[in-house]
Amino acid sequence: MSHRERIGGEGGTSPVALDGMGGDRAPQATVEGALQAAIRGARLYLTGPEDLLRPMLASEAEKMGVDLDSIAGSIEFVDAPEVVGMDDEPARAVRSKPNSSIAVACSLVASGRAAAVVSAGSTGASVAGAVLRLGRIRGISRPGIATVIPFPAHPIVLIDSGANAECRPEHLLDFAVMGSLFARIALDRSPVRVGLLNIGEEEGKGAALHKEAFSLLKEAASSKECAFDFVGNVEGYDLPHAAADVVVTDGFTGNVVLKLAEGLARSLIQEIVGAIAERTSGDVQREAIGALLELRKRVNADGLGGACLLGVKSPTVIAHGSSNAESIRDAVLFAGSEKASAIQRHIAESIAGMRVGDAV
Amino acid sequence: MSHRERIGGEGGTSPVALDGMGGDRAPQATVEGALQAAIRGARLYLTGPEDLLRPMLASEAEKMGVDLDSIAGSIEFVDAPEVVGMDDEPARAVRSKPNSSIAVACSLVASGRAAAVVSAGSTGASVAGAVLRLGRIRGISRPGIATVIPFPAHPIVLIDSGANAECRPEHLLDFAVMGSLFARIALDRSPVRVGLLNIGEEEGKGAALHKEAFSLLKEAASSKECAFDFVGNVEGYDLPHAAADVVVTDGFTGNVVLKLAEGLARSLIQEIVGAIAERTSGDVQREAIGALLELRKRVNADGLGGACLLGVKSPTVIAHGSSNAESIRDAVLFAGSEKASAIQRHIAESIAGMRVGDAV
Repeated sequence: MSHRERIGGEGGTSPVALDGMGGDRAPQATVEGALQAAIRGARLYLTGPEDLLRPMLASEAEKMGVDLDSIAGSIEFVDAPEVVGMDDEPARAVRSKPNSSIAVACSLVASGRAAAVVSAGSTGASVAGAVLRLGRIRGISRPGIATVIPFPAHPIVLIDSGANAECRPEHLLDFAVMGSLFARIALDRSPVRVGLLNIGEEEGKGAALHKEAFSLLKEAASSKECAFDFVGNVEGYDLPHAAADVVVTDGFTGNVVLKLAEGLARSLIQEIVGAIAERTSGDVQREAIGALLELRKRVNADGLGGACLLGVKSPTVIAHGSSNAESIRDAVLFAGSEKASAIQRHIAESIAGMRVGDAV
Repeated sequence: MSHRERIGGEGGTSPVALDGMGGDRAPQATVEGALQAAIRGARLYLTGPEDLLRPMLASEAEKMGVDLDSIAGSIEFVDAPEVVGMDDEPARAVRSKPNSSIAVACSLVASGRAAAVVSAGSTGASVAGAVLRLGRIRGISRPGIATVIPFPAHPIVLIDSGANAECRPEHLLDFAVMGSLFARIALDRSPVRVGLLNIGEEEGKGAALHKEAFSLLKEAASSKECAFDFVGNVEGYDLPHAAADVVVTDGFTGNVVLKLAEGLARSLIQEIVGAIAERTSGDVQREAIGALLELRKRVNADGLGGACLLGVKSPTVIAHGSSNAESIRDAVLFAGSEKASAIQRHIAESIAGMRVGDAV
């Protein structure tokens, strides 16, 4: 079960702008995903070269036996002929290519036509697009990416998993506030336990960033209004073992953690399947490998890679670069859901409350 | 096969100082490990409260059916009644507790009685003891911990895996030089491919540290004398997939990576054993779980956790905190081996050569 299925799935209600050209499998996966989301009730704008996307959707609908008229009002094409590549410097690309699929998707939200944006393209470009076009929530200086890592024993929310390679301690406090609201609303965790990723359990471990962030988190958690419990430092060992619901860290470490977890899970499962295939046969092999399939699903790429950029003014879902149609569908349904907008509302309120508290 | 078995095992020749009280299972595991190493030809000093260790060794020898006289000249006790705890601030503890087992072990090397030191105790105290008592190799400003991570497809050397929570770019260059010599001598890798842990493949990714380190590594690798190939940035995904032989990073990120790899490998294998046990029975279960055992051995705690502190003047092995007797034995055999001293010599020569090159 991927986290998308857990956190989304109730049917999008607000219109979503989908970057039709973002992702390794775009536009095939985005077009198919858009169609599947529309069938489940989503309304969406699909950005990209219209002359490419429109016939692709028609052909996809025909393959799936879907009458295009039945979803005619659900998917609207918005032409965006430029493409942002993985080599482009993100902020510059968004500024210099206003007609790229990601920039147009963000502009649709900025202008109020769409309520949320989804992209499986370059993370840097998605972050830059959202920050530049949607803007930050008042009081948040650095939006952070919250990713659900589906560790089998206990999925966790990791924030920041890649938006900010360098962070200050106060950014980590904002990540804790935002991540805990995300965990409460999207994953139904309550109370929410927040841990600081560090290299030792004891207070005083780590670099200056971690020592100061520890103090800030401890102080914040002691206030009555605080929506999370601070469980202190958590180490790499502890991440798969339910040490916390939300793990806060800088975007460099978070990105390494996220990708290592994904790479190692795949590698180990592959090794195990190989070891079992080599040493067993017939029924034994079939049954044992069958028993691995469910686990593999739980640690698949989409489950590991889907993410929300928190701290910008509208729901922004950064889907995994290797997203397939089902992942895109789930990302669209989640982005348009009441849960996604509730997370935004609560972050804005919570941060406003903290800032008022600071002033008193 | 743990990396200890791969890199050690040829019989120690130089005397080794073993911290008898270091590690979660000390002194039981250290005493047993010392005995096993002595049986294989090691000569060693065992530090700690002598009145505790001496009778324990006698009792262990009796249990193992070993005639103590036969190894009488191999193990010498050096009394060290103080103990450094996990909560002690490392450098202060080594200074304020000169009669602690780790400080005494380091002093034995400093005075020339022993040639190498082994501890499974607090990493911080071991690093502080080695840096303060043995001293740094001329030209190395920050010794780094090189750990072999036994990814099944391709074990890698990760440096720094925890000595320096904050690093400058030139430290990462030193780690590359030291780590590549370690990989060549201890793991027989040639040529040695060095990668920089980063959050994207392209040059220019990461924080200032990584951008500058990238330039330094690229420049160093282009010189004729350089002993490694620089393969550029490597991401978390790539670590288990043979992207490099040596991965350089700061000690904060390295420590997180090391512990996450260990925690996740254990967690996944446990989940898989559980999944197979639940869905199968009889022969199927037995055969399938049997097929997992070899893999589990390859990713066990000792294989993941043993490490060498590189950049200090004598071989310093930091064994995993949870080391059992076999791990201690292997650490002692490796520390006293010709390979361990060859690594030291080559690092000193290589760094001296680089510094001369700088001056020209």
